[in-house]
Amino acid sequence: MYNLYIALIHYPVANKKGQTIASALTTIDMHDIARAAATFGAAGFYLVTPLEDQQILAKEVMAHWRSGVGGIINPFRKQALELIKVVKDFEEVKQSLKTAYKHGVVTVATSAARYSGSVSVSELAHKMEENTAYVLAFGTAWGLAEAFVTGCDVILEPISGWNGYNHLSVRSAVSIILDRISMKRKLLTL
Amino acid sequence: MYNLYIALIHYPVANKKGQTIASALTTIDMHDIARAAATFGAAGFYLVTPLEDQQILAKEVMAHWRSGVGGIINPFRKQALELIKVVKDFEEVKQSLKTAYKHGVVTVATSAARYSGSVSVSELAHKMEENTAYVLAFGTAWGLAEAFVTGCDVILEPISGWNGYNHLSVRSAVSIILDRISMKRKLLTL
Repeated sequence: MYNLYIALIHYPVANKKGQTIASALTTIDMHDIARAAATFGAAGFYLVTPLEDQQILAKEVMAHWRSGVGGIINPFRKQALELIKVVKDFEEVKQSLKTAYKHGVVTVATSAARYSGSVSVSELAHKMEENTAYVLAFGTAWGLAEAFVTGCDVILEPISGWNGYNHLSVRSAVSIILDRISMKRKLLTL
Repeated sequence: MYNLYIALIHYPVANKKGQTIASALTTIDMHDIARAAATFGAAGFYLVTPLEDQQILAKEVMAHWRSGVGGIINPFRKQALELIKVVKDFEEVKQSLKTAYKHGVVTVATSAARYSGSVSVSELAHKMEENTAYVLAFGTAWGLAEAFVTGCDVILEPISGWNGYNHLSVRSAVSIILDRISMKRKLLTL
């Protein structure tokens, strides 16, 4: 486990028209992203939603796998879902990590859109320091609201494919970025 | 688009006890894997299931996005799902690609288990030749049946994380392997 965290944001995100909304929870996101976080050694996975009914749904899923029959049937899934914390907003994520790390927290936005000043995964991995928490924010629905992205300390370049098409699911995007960081950091420490 | 194909196998795969079964279709696999295939320029995505009711279900999903209202609402999804072909077995995939490519087809098995003689993604990407189709087979449920894996021309090394945990969803595994191949091939051709 190292000083990397995932935050899956359900507000503020864009809808198809670019309006800022709060999105509904997709329970498979919890599973896929927790499994990727466990595989690549991320220290935690924050599920960020201000909607109380969605917080309750998330906690019901977690209870099934963490203390219910799910965890007995599949202990690997239990181990992954134990990384999840449900919080009401991103401020809570930042405060919690700021308290836990001597050098505070660096917030990293991801987007399928290109922003000026964005950095590659290699650059981010190269700059990562000890005693600092790094939290990667991923948007659900049509992605993180623009004001959220520009409010983060670092913006990651979009994952670009071969032919201009970049409409990955958030589950795929998280998996790919965690893999790239993991590979890069392994290279750097070898 | 290049000479790389994905095959998502629903038979023969393992269940939790290691017995060979035919698994049920998970429709989100169709979406996530088609979107990753489109992003990284794969030429096709075969959905392999011998179960007729599951073939019908897959075709209903595809019709909604390819010729129904789904494709009007989300043309990017339409573009991705157009890569899908539903087939009854892996033999059909091989025959179809053998006919289409002058130098035939190379079958590549993926597994979370380690097999002797398996190769890394880098080695595979380095060896890929023109006029040959490469089809990456991914297992649903608890993964490809052992006899299927050892019957393929090439076996890929498992994706290994930092701490021995490697229980990624098949959606994550496909995304990561396509990204790694894509990055490697871009490096090789630069």
